Amino acid sequence: MILNKIGHILKDYDDFAIVSHVSPDGDSIGSMLGLFNTLKDFGKSVDLFVDDILPEKYSFLTGYDNIKRYNTGSKYSCLIILDCGDVLRLGELKSLLNCSDIVINIDHHISNTLFGDVNYVDSNASSVGEIIYQILKINGYNISKTTAMCLYTSILTDTGGFKYSNTTSMTFNIVGDLINTGINFSDIYSRIYDSKTLSQTKLLEKVLSTLEVYFNDTVAVLTMPYKLLEECNAKENDADEFINYARNIDTAEVGVFIKQINDFKCRVSLRSKNYVDVSKIAAYFNGGGHIRAAGCTIEGSISEAKNKILDALKDVLEVGHK
Amino acid sequence: MILNKIGHILKDYDDFAIVSHVSPDGDSIGSMLGLFNTLKDFGKSVDLFVDDILPEKYSFLTGYDNIKRYNTGSKYSCLIILDCGDVLRLGELKSLLNCSDIVINIDHHISNTLFGDVNYVDSNASSVGEIIYQILKINGYNISKTTAMCLYTSILTDTGGFKYSNTTSMTFNIVGDLINTGINFSDIYSRIYDSKTLSQTKLLEKVLSTLEVYFNDTVAVLTMPYKLLEECNAKENDADEFINYARNIDTAEVGVFIKQINDFKCRVSLRSKNYVDVSKIAAYFNGGGHIRAAGCTIEGSISEAKNKILDALKDVLEVGHK
Repeated sequence: MILNKIGHILKDYDDFAIVSHVSPDGDSIGSMLGLFNTLKDFGKSVDLFVDDILPEKYSFLTGYDNIKRYNTGSKYSCLIILDCGDVLRLGELKSLLNCSDIVINIDHHISNTLFGDVNYVDSNASSVGEIIYQILKINGYNISKTTAMCLYTSILTDTGGFKYSNTTSMTFNIVGDLINTGINFSDIYSRIYDSKTLSQTKLLEKVLSTLEVYFNDTVAVLTMPYKLLEECNAKENDADEFINYARNIDTAEVGVFIKQINDFKCRVSLRSKNYVDVSKIAAYFNGGGHIRAAGCTIEGSISEAKNKILDALKDVLEVGHK
Repeated sequence: MILNKIGHILKDYDDFAIVSHVSPDGDSIGSMLGLFNTLKDFGKSVDLFVDDILPEKYSFLTGYDNIKRYNTGSKYSCLIILDCGDVLRLGELKSLLNCSDIVINIDHHISNTLFGDVNYVDSNASSVGEIIYQILKINGYNISKTTAMCLYTSILTDTGGFKYSNTTSMTFNIVGDLINTGINFSDIYSRIYDSKTLSQTKLLEKVLSTLEVYFNDTVAVLTMPYKLLEECNAKENDADEFINYARNIDTAEVGVFIKQINDFKCRVSLRSKNYVDVSKIAAYFNGGGHIRAAGCTIEGSISEAKNKILDALKDVLEVGHK
């Protein structure tokens, strides 16, 4: 069984590098650190790499400060790659593949290209954190409070707070076991989901003031002129979840968020609830995504982008209602 | 064992009334309907009562429309009272106690006055929904998808989305079992937490525009002039969770929400995170609550109420920082 094989490698090897994808998130960071903290408890040498800036909200996790961006020529006996469907997701760190004796690839993306020497891909797992839990359990590792905090963070964030349909009864059982270690999961939850900066809250207010509804309130649109970021002293990713305020309008089938990039270009995010395939709308403008969540870039001012999107939605809504 | 005794009563009796508290919430409604749907499956006669208006967001649960406000003289073999620490929580429906052969009191409030003929109070249970699950399981009932939706709603809402510290590994195990029935828990979650009316979203924007911070950003204040409700065509309970936008500012120790009642009176809600006991501030203005969540009513305009609260907070923040 592959999980046992991975267990043997974790025991037999002494020096590891653990690496994960660019645009790091709660699952990639949490699963890296969960494995890191357990291996460190057993006296192993472990280096951590991510070729990107790390979201600061995960800095409370033990080992966060050990994550480095560049490898300055070190070689490793074992390279463990987490949550990456393919090696391009590693950014510049894909060079690590050439300076490691064995490569373990652990993932939950069904599209994984199986690029490792040992590959474990479980597309039914909510998160890589859930897989790391299973690897540790099956191989007899005790899960410490420190590791439990990391794995809880993984699972929490990749399930959207146990809300997304990737959450299974296995997920809930694992979380039940993790919180039995005595971690302050309420505090972790609040740090990740509730904490907002003053700038972010001001930006939200400005963006909410742009709310418009169309087609009998079935389409809700929010817009963000690029000058707002400066005006509110906010960062671009402060607006990451604003699309939900449009989507969550009870009468809305489609939520639209138009973020102005510059005077000539807008980035458009689309969300739907039940019957509109927003990936088709996005594809029409050379964008992409899924049925219920997609995005595209449109040339023009905010009002031009809005009109183009509304025109495209008008046709689809009429078809969808039939 | 009391849970078995309750099981025998559920099997032996044929006509039931199930009743819960005024100001109904997800747990009271979900646990009532979970038990209702199971008993109906066994051909029992079951009436449901709550002496209050029901929150419409739970109307998707089977049996919701069967909940009546008044009992017009019916008598019952068995009266089951859920989630009520004492009989006063029943409102006018406490009269049901006099027209029932046996009264079962099921609750999770440690303060329960044990007013039933049979009492089962488990203060470690996150919710009464969790207790109903255990009663059904221990007594061999199959939990249908319909019942699972109700009990999931109970547990979800009383744990604040599995966030509050009353959530235990038992809670997670039970939820894992409930979702195994195939319920669309993602949809339930979204209905309860994500769905907002257009009016509510407009009201949020207006209230966010009042955001002010004091004392090195450790106090965040939001205010709501009473005219805003009319201006946004919103209802008073649309603002129920706005206090969190003040509390969630990362630098804030205290979040304050001042809701103007009329030209002469304001209702003030207070939340704190780590070291300020807001129940003391509220008590100073003849209000009440807990260390981290309290409220009071202050005579005067919004700015007068704000100045009074800030004066009181100033002293406490200085002490708290020592």
